[in-house]
Amino acid sequence: MTTAKWIWRLALSIFLVVGFVDADKPQGFHREICQYRKGKHIQPMSVYHTRLLAVREQMLIRASLQGPEIYGYLLPSMDEHLNQEVAARDQRLRYLSGYTGVRAVAAITHHGAAIWLEKRYVQQADGELECDWEIYLANGNVTVADWLGSHVHLDKRVGADPHLVPHALWIEWERLLEDKFLKLAKINNNLVDLIWTDRPEAPKNQVIQVQAKEFAGENWQDKVRELRKRLAELACDAMVITSLTEVAYLLNIRGTDIPYTPVVKSYAIVSQDDIFFYVDHHKISLGIDLHLRTDCYNEDCVKIKEYNQIWSDIRTYAQKWKRVLVSAPCVQDLGASEAIYSSMPGKIVVWHISPIIFMRAQKNSNEQAGMRRAHIRDGAAICEAMSNMETRFHTEQWTEEKIKYEVELWRLSQNHAKGLSLRTVVAYGEHSALPYYISSNVTNIEVSDQSLLIIESGGQYLEGTTDVSRTFMFGEPTQEMKKAYTNVLAGILHLAQLKFPSDLKPSEVDALVRSMVWRDMTDYPQATGHGIGAYGAVEEPPISVAYGRNSSFHFKQGYFFSSESGYYKRDDFGVRLKNVLEVVDTGHTHPSGAHFLAFQDVTMVPYEPKLIDSTLLSAAEKRLLNEYNAKIRNDIGDELKKLGNMRAFYWMMNKTRHIREYLPEDEYRSATGGGSGGHTATPLLILGLTIVLASIFPTRS
Amino acid sequence: MTTAKWIWRLALSIFLVVGFVDADKPQGFHREICQYRKGKHIQPMSVYHTRLLAVREQMLIRASLQGPEIYGYLLPSMDEHLNQEVAARDQRLRYLSGYTGVRAVAAITHHGAAIWLEKRYVQQADGELECDWEIYLANGNVTVADWLGSHVHLDKRVGADPHLVPHALWIEWERLLEDKFLKLAKINNNLVDLIWTDRPEAPKNQVIQVQAKEFAGENWQDKVRELRKRLAELACDAMVITSLTEVAYLLNIRGTDIPYTPVVKSYAIVSQDDIFFYVDHHKISLGIDLHLRTDCYNEDCVKIKEYNQIWSDIRTYAQKWKRVLVSAPCVQDLGASEAIYSSMPGKIVVWHISPIIFMRAQKNSNEQAGMRRAHIRDGAAICEAMSNMETRFHTEQWTEEKIKYEVELWRLSQNHAKGLSLRTVVAYGEHSALPYYISSNVTNIEVSDQSLLIIESGGQYLEGTTDVSRTFMFGEPTQEMKKAYTNVLAGILHLAQLKFPSDLKPSEVDALVRSMVWRDMTDYPQATGHGIGAYGAVEEPPISVAYGRNSSFHFKQGYFFSSESGYYKRDDFGVRLKNVLEVVDTGHTHPSGAHFLAFQDVTMVPYEPKLIDSTLLSAAEKRLLNEYNAKIRNDIGDELKKLGNMRAFYWMMNKTRHIREYLPEDEYRSATGGGSGGHTATPLLILGLTIVLASIFPTRS
Repeated sequence: MTTAKWIWRLALSIFLVVGFVDADKPQGFHREICQYRKGKHIQPMSVYHTRLLAVREQMLIRASLQGPEIYGYLLPSMDEHLNQEVAARDQRLRYLSGYTGVRAVAAITHHGAAIWLEKRYVQQADGELECDWEIYLANGNVTVADWLGSHVHLDKRVGADPHLVPHALWIEWERLLEDKFLKLAKINNNLVDLIWTDRPEAPKNQVIQVQAKEFAGENWQDKVRELRKRLAELACDAMVITSLTEVAYLLNIRGTDIPYTPVVKSYAIVSQDDIFFYVDHHKISLGIDLHLRTDCYNEDCVKIKEYNQIWSDIRTYAQKWKRVLVSAPCVQDLGASEAIYSSMPGKIVVWHISPIIFMRAQKNSNEQAGMRRAHIRDGAAICEAMSNMETRFHTEQWTEEKIKYEVELWRLSQNHAKGLSLRTVVAYGEHSALPYYISSNVTNIEVSDQSLLIIESGGQYLEGTTDVSRTFMFGEPTQEMKKAYTNVLAGILHLAQLKFPSDLKPSEVDALVRSMVWRDMTDYPQATGHGIGAYGAVEEPPISVAYGRNSSFHFKQGYFFSSESGYYKRDDFGVRLKNVLEVVDTGHTHPSGAHFLAFQDVTMVPYEPKLIDSTLLSAAEKRLLNEYNAKIRNDIGDELKKLGNMRAFYWMMNKTRHIREYLPEDEYRSATGGGSGGHTATPLLILGLTIVLASIFPTRS
Repeated sequence: MTTAKWIWRLALSIFLVVGFVDADKPQGFHREICQYRKGKHIQPMSVYHTRLLAVREQMLIRASLQGPEIYGYLLPSMDEHLNQEVAARDQRLRYLSGYTGVRAVAAITHHGAAIWLEKRYVQQADGELECDWEIYLANGNVTVADWLGSHVHLDKRVGADPHLVPHALWIEWERLLEDKFLKLAKINNNLVDLIWTDRPEAPKNQVIQVQAKEFAGENWQDKVRELRKRLAELACDAMVITSLTEVAYLLNIRGTDIPYTPVVKSYAIVSQDDIFFYVDHHKISLGIDLHLRTDCYNEDCVKIKEYNQIWSDIRTYAQKWKRVLVSAPCVQDLGASEAIYSSMPGKIVVWHISPIIFMRAQKNSNEQAGMRRAHIRDGAAICEAMSNMETRFHTEQWTEEKIKYEVELWRLSQNHAKGLSLRTVVAYGEHSALPYYISSNVTNIEVSDQSLLIIESGGQYLEGTTDVSRTFMFGEPTQEMKKAYTNVLAGILHLAQLKFPSDLKPSEVDALVRSMVWRDMTDYPQATGHGIGAYGAVEEPPISVAYGRNSSFHFKQGYFFSSESGYYKRDDFGVRLKNVLEVVDTGHTHPSGAHFLAFQDVTMVPYEPKLIDSTLLSAAEKRLLNEYNAKIRNDIGDELKKLGNMRAFYWMMNKTRHIREYLPEDEYRSATGGGSGGHTATPLLILGLTIVLASIFPTRS
């Protein structure tokens, strides 16, 4: 039972973080292996230890070229475009420490090193990191500034690479460090790059792909025109676009430069007169030149420049521009980096949410059709994978990693499939009870038919991006599992059937989904929903369905977002379901003048009928479920027949069979263990008649 | 069909307001009678016309004592404590214009007069006001400033009495008038008071009542101590309390100085050393002297001063205080008046939401028990009134006003009844389709058994305040009425059963109630909920359940609030239901550390079973309804038996009879007009057996 031990250690670590926060030096996650080694005076001299020493050396030597030396160094896991998942060349934190997860920040001093990460990565980090490293929770009681405050002397400098830090975070760090009497210094030469001898080259042959108008639905020229209009409304001369998904959307291009999101590492500057596109020239083909109209010289032609030239260009144009839009954070989007923000005089910078976010969120009709198409392909992929697996389930040995491989394989073999949209999560049994479990080789366990299996995954297709979670059971579920699954499903159904005025905020629909799991005084820690891109990022602003947060964005017709619910019973099992929904206009008007909007399921993957306790659903909910199943039978049925996979077809038909909307009363009664009594006339009548019959027949024989 | 005509005129008026807003002079509500009179050159010289002329004269003479003369005068319908319902002595707007409604503002210039009021009062105002007056909607397209801008020359002064205007509104008027190049001037002598020759005296014999500890649950000394603690946390030396309900709550006193809310016209000042209570000395009895400890001289003794002395006292103490809390607006509460705000130097004023609001909202255990008790008395009153009415329904002629009289009579005859808590609304047929209909002699219609009847009412009891809406039907409802009623009821049931973490905002539960009426692309304009006092105001901050609004207040254990839903089918019928709910702690903790809270029905008035289509409710909803009915049978049953009213008892028992939670499938089918078929085995079996039996018995005879 390795897992139970791991979980116990996790729990202990949280206790320790909470318990020792008032001690002189913060302690972090309790690392058992390190405690053991310390006792035995074992100190393995690994390559990571050497690298840590090299960075410390750089902190004294190179950093001092830019002022006095620094006594602390902050290193986020992001790249210059503030992506969370980054290219091999940009995995600086991984090179330094060996940590393979995401969403982390490291702090290095001359005598210590610590890393802040989300709870779900703690286990993995403990396995991967040397004992040089302390581990802290990102939203825990010990902040980066607290730790540095207790490790660095007063009035000393702490450095960080402004290219890798969002402006908003930089401001926050500056403030927190000031409270500890420390100064945050911009160190433009990244210290890890300086010691990284065998740093991977940027791939040379990854030519940019054009996103055809058939899928994009709109010329990039029209998008630029719309952007310029919006910039003019904000009285801005220009905008510096640093988000890769925004560049990709705006110019109708796609690439393979970072994992899970089909984008090209590049910057763009759009002013009223010019469009500059900063990218590695190796990635430009003749097709791109034609697509981007690099042959002409008016405001509708793109000028391609070398990737790094943006820095000198910004400084040059800053002389000319009066107001430049620099992206502020918006929900999941972190905005522009400190380096971009501070490369211009403060007085010309307009720190505002990127208008591209709102243009992109509202999908046009081609994109809408594409999203639906992509979800049909994706639904077929899941049916193929799961039907194949179910056939082989009892004849082979299955593990989480093997299932992950199978699901990814079937997804990538679909037509127009371009990759995955997120790290696939396959979580079985106790692992399914961990809301943020990320499967890895370290934690891999065998999958049997005793407990629930959660698969969370998504794909990138030429037409769109998908994101789906389903919970499976290969054996016979317990009543508790069925109840949990049914409540989670009911929440998803409640949201899907909502009709609402357009001035309702996304945070205000959350209770419709969560009230079902709140009934059992439980909850899931994820947000209920987030926007999703069309062959773009799997998490796209501005939609976030999460109660308790202030948000000023509303649903609009053509938005796509995810709807998710979960139930986690510690150390036992978990349930998670996630669908993508489309926002549609009902054509009706609310008395206040707002439009009545509605949702429509886009995800086309069957639920597990074995896990549905239909006595817990109302007739209306069952009707919705039957309608959804009928749609799957039609759309996915066609797709699977086209693919010629009849095994998957029959598997799908079996999972989507009609559920009786009205159960006879006695079925309810037997399911709920009796009721208020007095309404069992029908079965009694049958019994009575049968007895009468039985007493009659002998007389006749 | 007088009503239809009225509604048509209302609709036309809105059209006109919208249509003519760009014309030179705003036109306002189209007043048919005035149009007619103008055509015939009829100008009746009523007392109100004379009064208007007298005020215009004062605008030139008296106002000019306080600077240059004023060319416009603004008069709100509120009193010095910013109450909406005011004493006869403070009905200045009524004296001036004849308008008997509330929530209005009048503007008078030398050649014009106009009034701004809520849509629900427009009809009434048209009947009551002379043709001198134009009528505008409070949230319409023409603001007070727009109108004054087109009636007063540039750079002239517009006056208002700062005692009657909330500080926040004063600031807004100042800003809006400045945009029209007009100046808002403080005219301390109210111009209506100057011409009001026969102004009613303040009643001399209305002695203050002490709210016994049995009901208040806490000594006023403890409340003052808590207030002082909270003031100290805000670093305030003192607080000027201008809200009558806050004074009444803090000092455990009640009175009858204004309609519907049991308060005493008074001010209070609480500093760390003193408690000053400013009130008409005639209202003080020996009992009050003892209760308020006026015999001693330490910080726990109240010093009683004459009502008007507050103004000179504030000026005196302002020399000593460094920081004084003055109430800022909070949801329904308008905060302090401009006169209070500006009576102190700006630098010592701390404009902050009153801490008393949060102390008061969280009822203590005596108050909680009292609220429940009051609702039992109130539930019995409604049962008595309605059972009595149902008996006499077909033998007498009933009108809205007669029913109103009956309901009020039965309510006031309950033990511990102290009055009504709001203007009783009785709306039948087409009137029930008007969300804000206020019944009056002008609009009174006959009530028959053809349509729905909405009764919205509430009472004040020594133990607490009630607020309830129910919809009745004396004949046979249509299927459409049943569907509307059932959807409204389902919304109320959904909210009542919610369990939720305490960091959920009230605005985030609104969709649970409204989603039921949104299904039919309809909505009700009221907020879904508001806080309610304990023998206090029927609308009490800080709770407001209304989507789309930013609010930073949360539900807390011990809060009481209303939960309301409605359906309005124009010119046909309406449904409205309102219950009071209590917030209770479940004792469970949310994973985030927040408490899991739940609601509990406090209102104990039966729904109308004739109007419930049980095929539209889920089994869980029906179970909730049955549980609610069982509670009514128990609690109200006891009360009615105690009162000896068996007619009301049997009426109540009939309305709360058990509803079958699980209907046999064929009942569903016949109700919903067939389904997917194939599941009618049980009845077929019975039929089959019966045939077999029938064929057997003859053989034996």
